[in-house]
Amino acid sequence: MTQEMTSRLVIDYRNATDHAVGADNGVSAAELDAIQSYVSEQHARINAEHASQVQRWQDLPDNIALADEIAAFAAEAREQYDDFILIGIGGSSLGAIATIMALCHPYRNLLPKGQRVGPRFFVLDNPDPEKVKATLETVDLSKTLVNVVSKSGQTAETAANFLVVREALVNAVGEAQAAKQIIATTDPESGILRQMATEQGFRTFPVPPGVDGRQTVLSAVGLIPAALAGVDIHALLAGARAMRERASTDNVRQNPAYLLAALSVLSDTNHGKSMLVTMPYADALFGISDWFRQLWAESLGKKLSTDGKEVFAGQTPIKALGAIDQHSQVQLYTEGPNDKLIQLVAVEEYRDTVAIPEPPHADLEYLKGGELGQLLSRERLATAWALTQAARPNLTITIPTIDAGIVGEFFYMMQLQTVMAGALYHVNPFGQPGVEAGKNATYALMGRGGYEDLKAELLETPTDADAYICS
Amino acid sequence: MTQEMTSRLVIDYRNATDHAVGADNGVSAAELDAIQSYVSEQHARINAEHASQVQRWQDLPDNIALADEIAAFAAEAREQYDDFILIGIGGSSLGAIATIMALCHPYRNLLPKGQRVGPRFFVLDNPDPEKVKATLETVDLSKTLVNVVSKSGQTAETAANFLVVREALVNAVGEAQAAKQIIATTDPESGILRQMATEQGFRTFPVPPGVDGRQTVLSAVGLIPAALAGVDIHALLAGARAMRERASTDNVRQNPAYLLAALSVLSDTNHGKSMLVTMPYADALFGISDWFRQLWAESLGKKLSTDGKEVFAGQTPIKALGAIDQHSQVQLYTEGPNDKLIQLVAVEEYRDTVAIPEPPHADLEYLKGGELGQLLSRERLATAWALTQAARPNLTITIPTIDAGIVGEFFYMMQLQTVMAGALYHVNPFGQPGVEAGKNATYALMGRGGYEDLKAELLETPTDADAYICS
Repeated sequence: MTQEMTSRLVIDYRNATDHAVGADNGVSAAELDAIQSYVSEQHARINAEHASQVQRWQDLPDNIALADEIAAFAAEAREQYDDFILIGIGGSSLGAIATIMALCHPYRNLLPKGQRVGPRFFVLDNPDPEKVKATLETVDLSKTLVNVVSKSGQTAETAANFLVVREALVNAVGEAQAAKQIIATTDPESGILRQMATEQGFRTFPVPPGVDGRQTVLSAVGLIPAALAGVDIHALLAGARAMRERASTDNVRQNPAYLLAALSVLSDTNHGKSMLVTMPYADALFGISDWFRQLWAESLGKKLSTDGKEVFAGQTPIKALGAIDQHSQVQLYTEGPNDKLIQLVAVEEYRDTVAIPEPPHADLEYLKGGELGQLLSRERLATAWALTQAARPNLTITIPTIDAGIVGEFFYMMQLQTVMAGALYHVNPFGQPGVEAGKNATYALMGRGGYEDLKAELLETPTDADAYICS
Repeated sequence: MTQEMTSRLVIDYRNATDHAVGADNGVSAAELDAIQSYVSEQHARINAEHASQVQRWQDLPDNIALADEIAAFAAEAREQYDDFILIGIGGSSLGAIATIMALCHPYRNLLPKGQRVGPRFFVLDNPDPEKVKATLETVDLSKTLVNVVSKSGQTAETAANFLVVREALVNAVGEAQAAKQIIATTDPESGILRQMATEQGFRTFPVPPGVDGRQTVLSAVGLIPAALAGVDIHALLAGARAMRERASTDNVRQNPAYLLAALSVLSDTNHGKSMLVTMPYADALFGISDWFRQLWAESLGKKLSTDGKEVFAGQTPIKALGAIDQHSQVQLYTEGPNDKLIQLVAVEEYRDTVAIPEPPHADLEYLKGGELGQLLSRERLATAWALTQAARPNLTITIPTIDAGIVGEFFYMMQLQTVMAGALYHVNPFGQPGVEAGKNATYALMGRGGYEDLKAELLETPTDADAYICS
């Protein structure tokens, strides 16, 4: 049975327009009008690609059978395990972190077993020896489920961390039992992680073919950790479908994904806003900023040739958090260079209400009868107003509350927003060709066969090296 | 007895110069030479100000008596309390978070009492009702020490959170006992938090006069939480003094703080690098990036008048983490707009060593005999090389290992770097005039007396508001 929802997210973009921040800094109605036909054309192109099996990330919210399978697996695993280690980096971990941060208790790892839904959650993304060692010393390996996530199994950081964790697990519980405590999320058909899973007997879940790592949050990659932590993954998918339905129009003012793409890219290309700040007013939504930061940067930060000239596209995404960054970044946002578009995220009703007690001093009288969520919301309104007064463009995405459906809406909207932004920048939002050089250099430095020449080049010390050392 | 140290931090800046990334993108020797006399002049000005009781943040590392007092207090409190709540925002919490993240066990809150040094550590910075409620439900209030940090006591977020926590504490343990479990770090003489502390009998520690909130990490503000978590605060101060000694030269190439200030500001003003990315290759150092992000943004993001024209200064600081952001931001850093200076932080020896086990597949053979820290270091070298190949300026700050002395060096160096950067931008790095408008707007929306006109202005809805809503 498929649950259906209606999209509930609202965007107020007046402060990002010339009406609020002037023609230099704000996007005008004429600018939006001017790109409508191009947006429509690109909308048709994206739909045509989808029909021919490209843009397959759009179909992930429909995989109810997979969600059922994962929910059933997770229901058992939640009882069986005290600890859960996710091994994956970039797109293989950011979505899970965002979901769990948004939808689970902020201190869930501290809650005792009875009060906590599912096992404690640990992520080994970085091959940082200090963090890896601490993680292995903290978990109870005999009751730990390990989920290694890599499409190919070739990602150096993930492979290294997995080899370390697998050995520790084998040492703790023996080879046969270790294999039962490992699940691999990987390519359904090929790759070395697939091969290892077959040889060693790990249960597997698929990384969907035809999507980039940063588009996997609504696949098994993101759903398994979420389900283990007790998230209603069916509602997550239903929220994504609700947004997909709503974002099926080509009207740039009515389609929230296209509207945000247009405002962001026009702010960058026509108004010099080279940075896009995402600033939710809720600790729980900070992970979504971080997930979006990867999506936006890796999809749009691309080199392209225009009339034989190299052009470097891409707005730099910045994660911020309200109200905390009012005490850190807002001075810069208000009086520094006018080079940012700031998207605030407002929560109409927080999941908890905390009344502010009677203040003991006249100077704090204004807090009397107040409530923390109300204070936080007013801080946001005040910041939006102050930014606007300083002609700094900003917009506000309002959600009724934080729940699985809304998180699903964000995930779908921001992915479509990024695809349309790619079209507006004239770059291919898929792939990440710019990281190959660094990957190859790592292989060379690690002594991988076939990279000997590069290694020699890398180890060459410039003759003037000493002149640039301050020690 | 005063412990003394020698500075151990090394800067390699060749990749930030024209020799490595070309004249468009790199700072030249001539540019550094050209500012030497101005740097010397500003060095003399800073020293003169220090002699006349300005720049007093420079003296904080000398306050051994305060460190002794805090260490003694913390030694007792570590035995007495199971939980510790720090209530403070911005400069009142970022330094403590950075120190504890760098120098304590990454999962210290999960360790049982015997294995953990000191109480569990909670921060209430944001007045987020969800986080505040979860914190109060998680701690054992009868064994919780609360440290409220605010120079004036007027900071709305801190005041509101403190009123909530104080009431919960009074309800749990009674008024008299609650007063014993609260310590206030505040202005030594005036302000409403000072007044409340006197009336209610809280123990107090001083926020040093004449320094901004973002310069308090080496005062009681930062030292109390650090000492409670078991950090050797005397070593932290000794590291700061070692850097102060080393950074007492006016030579822009020999003074690490001036060198970093010069490279950053010249990269911005002469080469269009409007963003400064700080990317340590160690999870433990991420908090220092975040602390620096506030310092750099709030100090330098300033409006100034030059020849009657408004100029907006300040490079946008960005926190990143290696190797994780290789899978998130490096695509953008390499192929996106060439608008960033990237400062990498290298760790020569991590505090732990984790060998990578024998790989089961030929494609992973290159990991054989490897170690995680070695992999992470090679990832960094590879990234620096790839950035340089793409003409993206970068520099590397290398530290021998992560310890209290090195963290003290970072704190001191980055503060002096920021002061000199202010001079190079011709802005006053102290104060934060740009946040006043937002603060006043919050007061107005909360109904504080005296802000009625502003409130009316804020609540006015533009007649065209509906035209900019996408719902």
